[in-house]
Order: sequence, then C-alpha cells, then structure tokens
Amino acid sequence: MNDDQVNFPRRVTRSVRVGRLTLGSGFPVAVQSMTTTPTADVDATVAQIRRLAEAGADLVRLAVPTMADAEALGRIRRQVDTPLVADIHFNARLALATLDQGVDKIRINPGNVPADDDLFQVIDAAKARGAAIRLGVNSGSIMPRSKDTSPSGEGGPQGPGEGLTPETIPSQHSPQQIADRMVSEVLRYLDLFQSRGFRDLVLSLKASDVPTTIAAYRAVAVACDCPLHLGITAAGPREEAVLKSALGIGSLLAEGLGDTIRVSITGDPLIEVQTAVRMLEILHLRPLGGVEVLSCPTCGRCQVDLAPLAERLYLATRSIRRPLRVAVMGCVVNGPGEAREADLGLAAGKGFGLLFRHGRTGGEKIPENQLFDRLMAEIQKL
Amino acid sequence: MNDDQVNFPRRVTRSVRVGRLTLGSGFPVAVQSMTTTPTADVDATVAQIRRLAEAGADLVRLAVPTMADAEALGRIRRQVDTPLVADIHFNARLALATLDQGVDKIRINPGNVPADDDLFQVIDAAKARGAAIRLGVNSGSIMPRSKDTSPSGEGGPQGPGEGLTPETIPSQHSPQQIADRMVSEVLRYLDLFQSRGFRDLVLSLKASDVPTTIAAYRAVAVACDCPLHLGITAAGPREEAVLKSALGIGSLLAEGLGDTIRVSITGDPLIEVQTAVRMLEILHLRPLGGVEVLSCPTCGRCQVDLAPLAERLYLATRSIRRPLRVAVMGCVVNGPGEAREADLGLAAGKGFGLLFRHGRTGGEKIPENQLFDRLMAEIQKL
Repeated sequence: MNDDQVNFPRRVTRSVRVGRLTLGSGFPVAVQSMTTTPTADVDATVAQIRRLAEAGADLVRLAVPTMADAEALGRIRRQVDTPLVADIHFNARLALATLDQGVDKIRINPGNVPADDDLFQVIDAAKARGAAIRLGVNSGSIMPRSKDTSPSGEGGPQGPGEGLTPETIPSQHSPQQIADRMVSEVLRYLDLFQSRGFRDLVLSLKASDVPTTIAAYRAVAVACDCPLHLGITAAGPREEAVLKSALGIGSLLAEGLGDTIRVSITGDPLIEVQTAVRMLEILHLRPLGGVEVLSCPTCGRCQVDLAPLAERLYLATRSIRRPLRVAVMGCVVNGPGEAREADLGLAAGKGFGLLFRHGRTGGEKIPENQLFDRLMAEIQKL
Repeated sequence: MNDDQVNFPRRVTRSVRVGRLTLGSGFPVAVQSMTTTPTADVDATVAQIRRLAEAGADLVRLAVPTMADAEALGRIRRQVDTPLVADIHFNARLALATLDQGVDKIRINPGNVPADDDLFQVIDAAKARGAAIRLGVNSGSIMPRSKDTSPSGEGGPQGPGEGLTPETIPSQHSPQQIADRMVSEVLRYLDLFQSRGFRDLVLSLKASDVPTTIAAYRAVAVACDCPLHLGITAAGPREEAVLKSALGIGSLLAEGLGDTIRVSITGDPLIEVQTAVRMLEILHLRPLGGVEVLSCPTCGRCQVDLAPLAERLYLATRSIRRPLRVAVMGCVVNGPGEAREADLGLAAGKGFGLLFRHGRTGGEKIPENQLFDRLMAEIQKL
C-alpha cells in the first residue's frame, strides 16, 4: 500500500496555529487527549502530558475548574513542549487567567459560557497573544428549551444548573433536531467571534449519540471553513467507547472531515491516544508506526489453533516501533495472497505453517508448536 | 432519540431472498457470521449456529472445503431455522452439492472459481432452487498480474497455488488500484451471472486494508443495484479487528451503503455477532436491545473514581436484554445534560453522586461507595 495515495480528499479549511502545531486541511490530522489529573497537581499533570505525547498525542487539554488550576498552567507550560489547551466551562474569567499563563489554545463551551463582556475580553486577549480558540458544543450541555425546540428560536446561553427542573426537561428530540440545535449554537458564537475580528477558531459538535454527531459535523462542515475537532462525548467504557468513536470519527474522516480528533474513553487517557493513533494509521492518515497483525477469523477450513497464536503475536509486538505488516492466515484461500502483501506472512496447513518473507516462501513446513517462536525470530530479523 | 429517524438514507437496491430473510434496502441491515467448527462435525456446528443466532446473527455461513462438509449441510439444515450460506472456493462442484443439501445461499469467490461449465451448472441449479449467490471478492485472493496491473487487463481466474512464485509477485499497488481490480473482477462475474438470467446476487469486495475496502465498495455501489455484504477481511485479533471493522463498515453504513455486515475477528464468532449488532444499534440501524452505558472520559474536574464504576456497571449489565440508557458522568459540565437524555443518570460531585430517573433528581447525595449498588438497584426497578 502507498500511504501517499490520498483516499479521502480533505475538506478545505483555514489554517489555525496552536503553538508549534497547525490545524487544518493543509496539515496532518492531529491527535489529542485530556489529562485526568487535577491540573493544580503540577508534577502529576506534567508526567501525564509526557506519557500522552510519547504515545502520539499532538496536543493535550487540561481541565480548569478553579483559579488554582488556571495558575498552575504556567508552571506546566514551562516543563513540556506539547501544545496545551485549557478547557473552560461556565466562567470566562478562568479563560483570561489561562491565557496569562501562556496556553496555546482555549476551549470554550458555548452551552455554558455566556456571550457577555467577559467573553469579549477573552477574545481580545486570545488575539493579542496569538492563542487559538475551540468553540466546543456538547449535546449534554446545550440548553434545553422546552417551549421552543426550533433551531431558529431565541434564547442565549444560561448558567450551570439551570434546566434541571422537570418543567424544562425537553421532550425526546430526533438526532437531526439535536444536531440542528448544536449547529445553530456554534454558528452563533462563530459569528460573534468573527465579527470581533477573531478567526483562529476550531469547532467541535460532540454528542454521545453517533448519528447526531455525524449529522452535526456534516451540517457545520458546509457552513464554514473552520478546522473541525472530532469526537464522541461520554462515549463510555473502553469497549463501547472504541466502537462509538471509530464509527463516528471514522465515518467523518472517510468523508474528508476532521482536522484533529479526540477519542474519549472512560479511564486512562493513554488508551485514548493509542486508539486515536491506530485509527489514523488504519485510514492511511498517519504512517504505520509499529507492527500490524493481519489474521483471518478462521473457519471450518482452519487446521491449526490460529486464534491464540494471533492474539499472542499481537500482544508480543505492541512495543515494537518499527512499521511491519505480519499476516497470520488459517488456510490457502487468502493465506498466500495476504502473505504476499505483508512483510512477513504465515499460511497454515494441517498442523503446520508456511512462512513468507516479502511474499516469498522457502517451502519449509514449520510445526504448529514452533510457529510463534519462528514468527518472533523473523520479526526480530526484519 | 427516535430510532425511526433515518439519518443515513440507504442506497436503493434490488431485494434478494435468502431463505426466510430478505436482503436489500427495503429491509433491515442483516448481521452474519461464520462457523469455526469443521462443518462435517454436525453436532458442534449446529450448536455454534444456535449460539450465533441467539446473539443476533440473521444468517450464518459455513466453510465447505470437502465433499464431506457439503454432505453434512442437509443434516445441519434440518436442525436449525437460520438461513445458511455455503462458502465455496476453488471448486464449483462443491457448490452444486451444497445446493442439493438445501442451503439458502452460496458464496463464490471469483478470484478462485473459474468461469467454466461447472459454474454455469451452479448458476442454473441455484436458479432452479431459489437460492441466492454472493459474489465475494477478497483482496488476498485476486490474481496477481505482474505484467499487467491495469483493471482493464485480460486474464481469467486461475487455480489455487498459482501466483506464489517470485516472478508473479506484484509490485506494491495503491489502494485505488487494488480496489479497481476487485471491482472489475466482481463486475465481470456479475455480467456473466446476469447474462444467464440470474439476478439474486449479493456482492462483497473485502480487503484487509480499510481505505481499499471503502474505495471498492464506493465504486461498485454506483455500478449496480445489488445488495452489498460489507466486511474487512483478515481484520486481525479482537482489538484490531473491532477498530478496522468499525472504521470500514461504519463509514460505508454512514454513507447509506451495506445491506448485510460481517465483522471478522480472529477467535470466537460470538464476539463478531455481538460487535456487529452493537455497531448497528449505535448507528440506529437496529433498535437498542440491552443496556447502553454512557460515561465521560473523566478529567481534572472529576472528584470520584469514575472509571472503575463505569467499567463494573458495563460488565454487570451485559446480560440484561431490556433497552435502557444509563449515564455515568463525572461532573456538572455535561452530567445533568446527559442524565436528562438517559433513563437513569448519575452526575458526580465531590465524593458523592446525584441520581436522575428519566431526567429528574430527588437531590439525594449518594456516597461514592454506594453508587454501584444503587445504580444496579435502580436498573432492576426499571
């Protein structure tokens, strides 16, 4: 496969600088994640940022719920060179404080940061400092409007805690209705920011529902040229979150949308970064950086115990950082074909396997119980 | 969310009957998998088919490498009511034998079943018996053409084992070139079958490379109106296979392509079916059939140990077959919002959580160490 072959022509966007990184269609799709440490715990946060960057994160976001967290950002900023994003909710004054501390980008949630004088100060400060801003709408924090569910309805952002009483609980909305609300909310803020001369904007419109998310991004993509930050919010525990993120983020990337992605998984953010990096590799949006194990699902044709071999090989090769494709195939139907495309291939017969190196086999029949060791030895040689 | 809201208008296809099931755009996207037992082992195969059907498989495919496997199909057919598909490679006469045994559909691999008199007999026999045929091309079994890599090049299907010598190893092809070869191969067979008056055809064009697969399906979708069977071949061990399948199958489904899907995972096919069913649920292509756990990725705002709680809840609710959405959220940013959309919601504070039932909270602060038990008790009540 040629990774230089562009399969998914990207939607053309403006370019937005985030520290040393640039987001937009002229640049690679960037991977990001978010720290789970209390931001004010500078040592723990710096250590986590380094782990995430080492795994392939291009930028890292941090929660800023208090002024102590905002003030910690300067000390963190001086210890890492990864571009940093401050995550702001409810309180624009926290955003001002993080800009003072030198963050490269702030994320503002239009659903809970009102469009008032404090916000105008944030826009001007970000412009003066060359920081970017993400307008990040979430389905979970857009305001319920029980009387008026049309996207054209008036009603500005409200403070936190509102909308929790029974009378403001909205009736169930369709994915398209929720997506329309999200789009109208983000575009209203986009107009506001641009009318103040600020253009270094990235947009996100995340829902926990995948079709809602896809609908929202598709709609906003044709309404502006801002880079898009893709993600599924509250995606769940690992198994569920990987599936939802791959379905939602993947389908948008395959349509050419998306300039930075964040896979959300409840748990260690390292898994988020590893998953996001692998998604981009699979879609040829980032070069392969390790060992890819291809293996067939096995069927009634297979005459070796292939699944444990493939799983063991997969686990044993996770730490190898050299790009290599290894095919482990259970029979002759696709075995030689896949082996031909891989750097190293195995096509199994009855209780044995044939090895292929770059598509060529010496014809030696390797007994089933030696296959793992031989494959690992060959991988070490390559 | 309304599941009746169609987000992904389906590509319009002809309808193809497969036993009691119909495949095509007028019908739900069907889930399929493949048995891993030796087909001639009738008891083991019947037991596995039943497990797969119970988990949500709408049709099941079986390998038929030998005449003994073909002859076992009649005994299997009489013991299960799931539509059955015989997987045929290399030898059209095996296909004839499986039709005699009453299979509902056969899969033929144009890459290794030559277009000769035996194949014409298969077409006529399938027509006489009302059986459907899938023309299933795999990137691993299309013929290498070292001298001629253009899709318009001549060169019919060849037998197995050819193409393994160094001089026939193709140079590296781009995803688009491989996709073009796959499309031209399947369309050539499609013309052949239709010219003989056979129209109950489903097509698949699977590669182990995801962009190649997407390119192949996109191209074939505009060239005919046959239902499409989606899948990524040799997708690998579970973690890798889930990611590749969700990216490849998911992006095509989100474009409206695909009438039946098979998630290929090296290992127990039950996982394939569970994953495929969940993918369709997430995309609103099948109604939710169990408990969906929404949970946030946590961040520096979160003041309870949310990840183990979410994971434990996820595992504890896998066996519940009642549709229910449970949101487990770490703070007030999206917590109340997600909780509002869920049947049962938890928004965490500092060492406690607030429960929401259908969006309403009583305001009781539940201590962190009681959250799991209280959530499970509420789920039992609902």
